[in-house]
Amino acid sequence: MSVHVFKLSRVSSCLSCHRLQESLLSSASGYRNYRGVLNWCVVMLVLSNARLFLENLLKYGILVDPIQVVSLFIKDPYNMPAACLVIMSNVFIVAALYTERRLSVGCFSECVGLLVHSINLSVTLCFPVAIVLMVKSMTPVGGASALGVYTVLFLKLYSYKDVNKRDEPYLYYFVFAPTLCYELNFPRSPRIRMSFLLRRLFEMVSSWMIPIIQSSMKPLEVNIIPLSSLSHQVPNHLLWLIFFYWFFHSSLNFIAELLQFGDREFYRDWWNSETITYFWQNWNIPVHKWCLRHFYKPLLKSGVSKWLGQSAVFLASAFFHEYLVSVPLKMLRPWAFMGMMAQLPLAWFVARFLRGNYGNAAVWISLIIGQPIAVLMYVHDYYVLHYREGSAGGGPE
Amino acid sequence: MSVHVFKLSRVSSCLSCHRLQESLLSSASGYRNYRGVLNWCVVMLVLSNARLFLENLLKYGILVDPIQVVSLFIKDPYNMPAACLVIMSNVFIVAALYTERRLSVGCFSECVGLLVHSINLSVTLCFPVAIVLMVKSMTPVGGASALGVYTVLFLKLYSYKDVNKRDEPYLYYFVFAPTLCYELNFPRSPRIRMSFLLRRLFEMVSSWMIPIIQSSMKPLEVNIIPLSSLSHQVPNHLLWLIFFYWFFHSSLNFIAELLQFGDREFYRDWWNSETITYFWQNWNIPVHKWCLRHFYKPLLKSGVSKWLGQSAVFLASAFFHEYLVSVPLKMLRPWAFMGMMAQLPLAWFVARFLRGNYGNAAVWISLIIGQPIAVLMYVHDYYVLHYREGSAGGGPE
Repeated sequence: MSVHVFKLSRVSSCLSCHRLQESLLSSASGYRNYRGVLNWCVVMLVLSNARLFLENLLKYGILVDPIQVVSLFIKDPYNMPAACLVIMSNVFIVAALYTERRLSVGCFSECVGLLVHSINLSVTLCFPVAIVLMVKSMTPVGGASALGVYTVLFLKLYSYKDVNKRDEPYLYYFVFAPTLCYELNFPRSPRIRMSFLLRRLFEMVSSWMIPIIQSSMKPLEVNIIPLSSLSHQVPNHLLWLIFFYWFFHSSLNFIAELLQFGDREFYRDWWNSETITYFWQNWNIPVHKWCLRHFYKPLLKSGVSKWLGQSAVFLASAFFHEYLVSVPLKMLRPWAFMGMMAQLPLAWFVARFLRGNYGNAAVWISLIIGQPIAVLMYVHDYYVLHYREGSAGGGPE
Repeated sequence: MSVHVFKLSRVSSCLSCHRLQESLLSSASGYRNYRGVLNWCVVMLVLSNARLFLENLLKYGILVDPIQVVSLFIKDPYNMPAACLVIMSNVFIVAALYTERRLSVGCFSECVGLLVHSINLSVTLCFPVAIVLMVKSMTPVGGASALGVYTVLFLKLYSYKDVNKRDEPYLYYFVFAPTLCYELNFPRSPRIRMSFLLRRLFEMVSSWMIPIIQSSMKPLEVNIIPLSSLSHQVPNHLLWLIFFYWFFHSSLNFIAELLQFGDREFYRDWWNSETITYFWQNWNIPVHKWCLRHFYKPLLKSGVSKWLGQSAVFLASAFFHEYLVSVPLKMLRPWAFMGMMAQLPLAWFVARFLRGNYGNAAVWISLIIGQPIAVLMYVHDYYVLHYREGSAGGGPE
């Protein structure tokens, strides 16, 4: 029989149109090219927003109020504390540059240099906190933006101080370059591609449009019922995704193109991450690089174990998350900090029990569910603190 | 200066942590691994359905009525015309097999064989139409299923007749095998993987659950307002995607695993298609293979031009789309046919003007918008035909 089959197979081989193979979606096929699925997500996002936009335009006309958007950042156009804070940051840059210049010509000893740098860095971190907490006219969004700028500056200056050892000190290109790790000569792209620049600019503007359109659609109402927290998850998660694209792809690439900064690795393929650790190592490459270079590796060199080093990085990251959220809202709550620290046992669990696509799904679920819960905690507390007081006393503002 | 920079670069090369590179999401990077995005879509689909399911369960208890699902297929459990039709199809299989046996032993001449085959094939196509149109108790879903079975059988028998030239004729494995192209010996997989089988079965069942849950959520209401057609698009498109996965991945793989059928290429990477043509060539491989082997290539051999051959394939495909929709609904409308034929100018337009991700987005938009419009046309006509008559006269059923 088998000989017979073999003979037949030779006869019909010219007609054969099947061969042994797996379906592409089976994990055994090893196929992973789903660029089209990403396009599908973008098309769905644009279409569903276009529909909302069209429907509302037909019903109510244009509802987007540019003043309202601006008022998130400033209360009074003649009193812009956040903008002043950002302009003030130049003082710290000049101080760091001045210290390095002094060191390079030998006016400062190593010890004095280190002391001046340390004071400069501490003040960089503490000064905006004091201002944000004291100035009444500071809005949460404005405060968070200013604190974000100062945090970035702190990380940059720390890197600058760490790396710049008696070389020719220069700084201002580094301040604007989309990286946190100082180098004496960054790789540069050969020229500014205008079409690339314009496309990123278009993306930056249209990314802003989506949340504005959506928020103008429904009145912002906060129901503090456990189940309704579920319905907040999807938009919150989508906002985070849009923020990611807006900041890490469009904005940083825009700045990099403008400055001809060559290294565009602002993120790696975190969307494929099968462990929590992989996600944290790949979604924010500037910070990851900084942590690795100026925090984790020095810790390892000083004899700390790998596991302790990782935990320390998480702790530092948790501190900065808390710093960027609690101070602008003017309420100290442990939610961001706890959220970050909860990543440690979660990372252990996922790495231990889940593999491949299941691990990836677990990472997504932790992002989709975890983040909004932390956000909701703050919204809840902020609401209770301000509006309940408001209804009893003289109003929050 | 450049020499100076070069010297510095050598000094700091050990500290260098940047290199010239593009961001992954830039098309210039050539990166296309987005498996994680697919997982994201699945997680979002499951989570949003879980929410709906949970909310409704808390509000109303279990609403899913198995009887209602079954009643889509049959009206009266003692009178199942669709099931009878499917069972009847064995007659045509036996007739084809009998003809080949006769031919192989020389009882039939080539001419008689061709005649008998042709009659058999024509009856395979026409007989169920007559039954579906005549039998009153045939439901649209039942009729469509039966017609689908007969269409598949027609394509299979045509392939059988075309390929089987005096070899040992066998048929029944081919009838159940998930392919439309006959071969004397199909590639076989070495063994039945139980875990694979069970996973596909689980997927098959849970894919059924999603539309059932969703349809039990909101009462099915049909508003014939032009704008509201937009709001039908997303669920319709999602249903199509779920159908694709359910049929082409889960079901066909399940059957193939059961029959140890080795060739699992039921679809290719149509989600990345950048032209309409690529989509039609890759989303339904069994039909595409059949068309290529038994329709397009013979046409080319007989001297027809490439362009005319392609149009003929589209025409045949449009005919079968119409056949599978108009007959079970018992109303002859040109929407499916026109929808298919509209693909030709659309394909030309996309191939001519759009490239890369823009082409891919255009394919997605044509799927998301085009399909539901055709479906809506039928729903509209069906509604007008049956329920308007119903309110005026004696009711449709």
